Amino acid sequence: MTSLHALLAQMTLDEKIGQLVQLSGEFFLDEPQLTVGPKAKLGIAQAVVDNVGSVLNVSGAVKTREIQRKHLQNSRLKIPLLFMADVIYGYRTIFPIPLALGCSWSPALIRQCCVVAAREAASAGSHVTFAPMADLVRDARWGRCMESTGEDVFLNTQYVRASVEGFQQDMPTQQGLAACVKHFAGYGAPIGGRDYNTVELSHQSLFEDYFPPFQAAIDAGCEMVMTSFNTVDGVPATANPWLLKTLLRERWGFQGITIADYAAVKELIAHGVAADEQDACAIAFNAGLDIDMKTACYANGLKPLLAAGKISERALDDAVLRVLRLKQKLGLFDDPYRGVTPEGEQRCCYHPEHLRLARETAGKSLVVLKNDRQTLPFNPATTRVALIGPYADNPDIFGLWAVYGEKSRCTTLKTALQEAIPDGNLCVTPGCDLLLDYGFLGEFGATHQVEQTRCLTDNERAQELERALDYARQADVVLLAMGEHMMQSGEAASRTDLHLPRHQVEFIQQIAAVAKKTVLLLFNGRPLVLTDVVDHVDAIVEAWFPGIEGSHALVDVLSGKRNPSGRLSMSFPYANGQVPVYYNALNTGRPAHQSDHSPRFLSKYLDCPNAPLFPFGFGLSWHETRLSDLHVTPRLLPGGTVMVSVAAHNTSDVDGLETLQLYLHDCVASIARPALQLKGFTQVMLAAGETQVVHFEITPHDLGFYDAEGDVRLEYGRFRAFVGLNSASLLEGEFYYAES
Amino acid sequence: MTSLHALLAQMTLDEKIGQLVQLSGEFFLDEPQLTVGPKAKLGIAQAVVDNVGSVLNVSGAVKTREIQRKHLQNSRLKIPLLFMADVIYGYRTIFPIPLALGCSWSPALIRQCCVVAAREAASAGSHVTFAPMADLVRDARWGRCMESTGEDVFLNTQYVRASVEGFQQDMPTQQGLAACVKHFAGYGAPIGGRDYNTVELSHQSLFEDYFPPFQAAIDAGCEMVMTSFNTVDGVPATANPWLLKTLLRERWGFQGITIADYAAVKELIAHGVAADEQDACAIAFNAGLDIDMKTACYANGLKPLLAAGKISERALDDAVLRVLRLKQKLGLFDDPYRGVTPEGEQRCCYHPEHLRLARETAGKSLVVLKNDRQTLPFNPATTRVALIGPYADNPDIFGLWAVYGEKSRCTTLKTALQEAIPDGNLCVTPGCDLLLDYGFLGEFGATHQVEQTRCLTDNERAQELERALDYARQADVVLLAMGEHMMQSGEAASRTDLHLPRHQVEFIQQIAAVAKKTVLLLFNGRPLVLTDVVDHVDAIVEAWFPGIEGSHALVDVLSGKRNPSGRLSMSFPYANGQVPVYYNALNTGRPAHQSDHSPRFLSKYLDCPNAPLFPFGFGLSWHETRLSDLHVTPRLLPGGTVMVSVAAHNTSDVDGLETLQLYLHDCVASIARPALQLKGFTQVMLAAGETQVVHFEITPHDLGFYDAEGDVRLEYGRFRAFVGLNSASLLEGEFYYAES
Repeated sequence: MTSLHALLAQMTLDEKIGQLVQLSGEFFLDEPQLTVGPKAKLGIAQAVVDNVGSVLNVSGAVKTREIQRKHLQNSRLKIPLLFMADVIYGYRTIFPIPLALGCSWSPALIRQCCVVAAREAASAGSHVTFAPMADLVRDARWGRCMESTGEDVFLNTQYVRASVEGFQQDMPTQQGLAACVKHFAGYGAPIGGRDYNTVELSHQSLFEDYFPPFQAAIDAGCEMVMTSFNTVDGVPATANPWLLKTLLRERWGFQGITIADYAAVKELIAHGVAADEQDACAIAFNAGLDIDMKTACYANGLKPLLAAGKISERALDDAVLRVLRLKQKLGLFDDPYRGVTPEGEQRCCYHPEHLRLARETAGKSLVVLKNDRQTLPFNPATTRVALIGPYADNPDIFGLWAVYGEKSRCTTLKTALQEAIPDGNLCVTPGCDLLLDYGFLGEFGATHQVEQTRCLTDNERAQELERALDYARQADVVLLAMGEHMMQSGEAASRTDLHLPRHQVEFIQQIAAVAKKTVLLLFNGRPLVLTDVVDHVDAIVEAWFPGIEGSHALVDVLSGKRNPSGRLSMSFPYANGQVPVYYNALNTGRPAHQSDHSPRFLSKYLDCPNAPLFPFGFGLSWHETRLSDLHVTPRLLPGGTVMVSVAAHNTSDVDGLETLQLYLHDCVASIARPALQLKGFTQVMLAAGETQVVHFEITPHDLGFYDAEGDVRLEYGRFRAFVGLNSASLLEGEFYYAES
Repeated sequence: MTSLHALLAQMTLDEKIGQLVQLSGEFFLDEPQLTVGPKAKLGIAQAVVDNVGSVLNVSGAVKTREIQRKHLQNSRLKIPLLFMADVIYGYRTIFPIPLALGCSWSPALIRQCCVVAAREAASAGSHVTFAPMADLVRDARWGRCMESTGEDVFLNTQYVRASVEGFQQDMPTQQGLAACVKHFAGYGAPIGGRDYNTVELSHQSLFEDYFPPFQAAIDAGCEMVMTSFNTVDGVPATANPWLLKTLLRERWGFQGITIADYAAVKELIAHGVAADEQDACAIAFNAGLDIDMKTACYANGLKPLLAAGKISERALDDAVLRVLRLKQKLGLFDDPYRGVTPEGEQRCCYHPEHLRLARETAGKSLVVLKNDRQTLPFNPATTRVALIGPYADNPDIFGLWAVYGEKSRCTTLKTALQEAIPDGNLCVTPGCDLLLDYGFLGEFGATHQVEQTRCLTDNERAQELERALDYARQADVVLLAMGEHMMQSGEAASRTDLHLPRHQVEFIQQIAAVAKKTVLLLFNGRPLVLTDVVDHVDAIVEAWFPGIEGSHALVDVLSGKRNPSGRLSMSFPYANGQVPVYYNALNTGRPAHQSDHSPRFLSKYLDCPNAPLFPFGFGLSWHETRLSDLHVTPRLLPGGTVMVSVAAHNTSDVDGLETLQLYLHDCVASIARPALQLKGFTQVMLAAGETQVVHFEITPHDLGFYDAEGDVRLEYGRFRAFVGLNSASLLEGEFYYAES
């Protein structure tokens, strides 16, 4: 156990500054051709590299050990490096994307996934993951919806807490990671859904919807916080003292490390709040930012600023201490390699238990949006199936942020179906192109290994269509595996058109016209506008980007081996022009359903419903549940509890997991309250025909809300309590919160 | 001259309360069948009606005199009624809609229009107009874009000031109105563009972009302020003490009357901030709202609240005094009829000078968006013209908020063209339906006199198309008069799809395919997405809803009699999913044009440019201007001036009015600054071939900006100065603002 203060006392200024600088792997690897460019470009001297405190996105036992070893040779005080990486939804064992995970309504499951992701990443030498992402999302145009668990603050808060606990669970035994919650704050609400764009939010909304998951992360012991790219009140988050000091440190008591998102310190210049790199360094550091990721601003700026008295040595020491403290917590001073070996990495990654969890999780994350004419499930032993579509035999179903995923290890849907369906009963063909234009991939090549995808020639296209129509006519069930290209969602992948591409829509309509039964299987990273296909197909399964075991999970569901239970954590818009659309909106003064008002002057569109096509909380299962007999204790006193009970009756002959959702509405408050707010949910396994009475408890704590100063208001009065299977179909009761 | 304090001292509580209640005309007219319903519904007693202070939307010399006469018979203290009305862009002489007026870039012209509107309305017995609307708009989905002058705070501020001055110019001589600036505040930014919806804005943005026009109105002496329907920080504006007291009264020193928008006090219940009407009364009054429009909340609530000590008598007296003071200012205590006579009304309305101004204004408000192949103007004496489209012979070109306009007085485009084109050279036919479904009009019938519009039968449609194609083939120029139905924009007319209806687009494409030259004339109330038609036609003229003389003005322009000078005051989006799009956005940390950055991770869409299809400030004329030789004084000192000069050369053989636009960018500031901000403009008449050097002055005042507390920050540093003919094509210089 090193005394950190003693260590600090020995450190030179350069050594201190190094701890606040994070560089990527090319600075450390013995590949001079890689290092020269960026190093020269960043303008960082070797002396800084030698003193640097952390490394970004290098992984693998061999590589990390080698870098650590060399670093310690150069490090006068033998301060080990921290390895940080994007381990967002799996390291090698890739789970479904977070937006899919959000549809599981299972924080426990997400916790397990994070435990596994952390173990695999830790076995490969990582120490910190840049996860979870806690950003609330309401605008499906924003590509990073896929990295969020959805539009609801209550759900997100639970998921974020579970994720932090999961990632950090095994931290003390060297098998876990430190978590870094991101992006603080407001990043999920860029204007126009355009990535990195300006955010316009009132403080009241920030406190109410955007901050709680961050506060939960901190309460759960999250070691780090990453700033967001956007401005808040016109001040970039990375240089925003209100966010980084007033809230994070002073109000929430955060003791850990703050880090900038990739190059965000230097980007203060582009934002127009810093004149140059040194200025950027000064305002970011003085705002409360500890680590500068991947720019030279801190490396070159802190020293002269300190000399000029523009930053304080005390603040510098505090920041350095926070970095050293995390290294100590991770055990790096005792074992800078943290027990990592190539053999251990090999043993851990792709462990069968991990893959089993991935299959379970994918099965619980996909969402059945439609299932008419008893189309699903089908008996794989006796059903002639045509599997058609660009995702029929495509392993590229990890989604964008599976940095360390190896798609060669991913089972395709075709392969998974072949395991379940007898030979001769399955026909497979792509049918059509995924996209008609892959031009947008051009500029991505350098960052991700994406093959430039070739489109079908006119001849091939005609042949494919004929073949697909032929297969469709002969099948009992047609599975259409369609969706987005994996590069169409995720970071820097904002889109204004949320429909499937026109040629996919037309293809779906053509196939559905000749098929006996048509199932649309969707692979995508954001809510899509499905208005133009929903009436053409019999069933829709939103598979998201389901990860390494996604195909098996999908076949489990299609074949009835698994009864799906996923429920949407983000609304599916009715039209492009309807975004942002979300369930927990305010009533407004002229709600569309208001009956005692002129029908004209209400808050609605002329050409589009207010409601999304598929609402928050919605999803189908192979069983059916009917709710009845809602009872709500009529009176709540301070310190007391309201009991809500409801009878859930499985009316089908299939066992099933049902998600009962509790919503509240505060009828009169000093600040207008949402029409509905999720305040609880519970998952119950209902045997075929079974009825269970399910109980919820409401305490005064559930009734508080934030004002614009971030103070909690808890007001007496009338409340409505709702229970339902989704946010659009609810039983309703009411109670009073009264002083006595 | 009445001593108002003496009068107040004589007033009973009921008489005082009456002054704070506004009712609509049916309460006063001798038409018992009209009065019973609403009166009973509102639950207001005749005693309150007898004491009431103001009347909403009754006009006409005969009616207002009669109501005033009866009222004074019943009024113990002979306190005259105030007549308030929606005189938004003209009373009888209907000018172009405000969004069109905004494109004139001429506050002086708008001032004149307001003078005329006020004179006509005053001649008909009105005292107050619910105008100007000062709401900044960035989202074309919002139907009330048409009532705004656009997306820019600088331009809006000038227009609002000019409007207030115009409306109130003749107030002292009984021929003007008092102005009521609306809607305070933030109403122009409803989420999803849906009318009455929640607003999310930071205080910094409110101060920077949304408040200044209101402050300008107040500085110009505006007598009244109307609250908006939306919430600000979750608190409805109508019950928001921060807006109504802290800002309006304490900071800006507003002495006039605050009034709720229609029924907004009662709507506090729907908002969920008031339990019942009395509660709504309490919170609105205590927040600083003087007059309750068209609900019973104040009428029934103030008395018991006062008795219970929940509102103060002093506050009540203050509010009543403000109402009395306005009545006094308007001269109503001296002549409660304000000199109004039916003969005077008849003399004033439709005065030839007013119609001349309407023609001039419409001509200066329309915007030419495209003009290839020298399509426009054409010589009406020698050109064979086909005028085709649902607006070819349609007088319904006033737009929604021309409450007192009489469309029987409106010249259609056909008639106006017939005046200019020799017999035999003009063919006219509607060609296609305006809409294929008028279902949405059903619920509007009661409020506006809209004929249920019948669509063409299939047979008629085929015949019309044939005729139109036939006319198009024979013509030298085809004018396609297309657009929105007047009920598709304005209040409660939000739309998610901003394209022309599909059948209009197809019709345009079909006609353009056979026509020699095609000109698209657009009648609409908001920016449309024209991406699917722009390449099919040779020219586009955005006529907006141009008002009573719009057709003549359009013919003036088409025929070359007038050289158009309109420039967009609101961006035209490229796609539905791109909204909100506006020119003065922040740079972000990753601006799309940044060259030293990975091309991928920039703030942009995958499927749509960041730029709108037609940018703010854009418009074509029959002349062409080339700018050169931008000179900017390099240094600005406190108290000093930067001179910006530019040479404007009319390269054409046509005289023309050009609008030179001055934009600034503050390169480094403590709060991120927009990439461009309009800070000046000037219109110069350039003779054919002429060059003029145009000068702008920049003072430190132009460099200040607001922080989140509403304090002005004025910071030294580098600034860019741009001059151009629109916001997307600019000459650039720079200067330093320095202490010494």
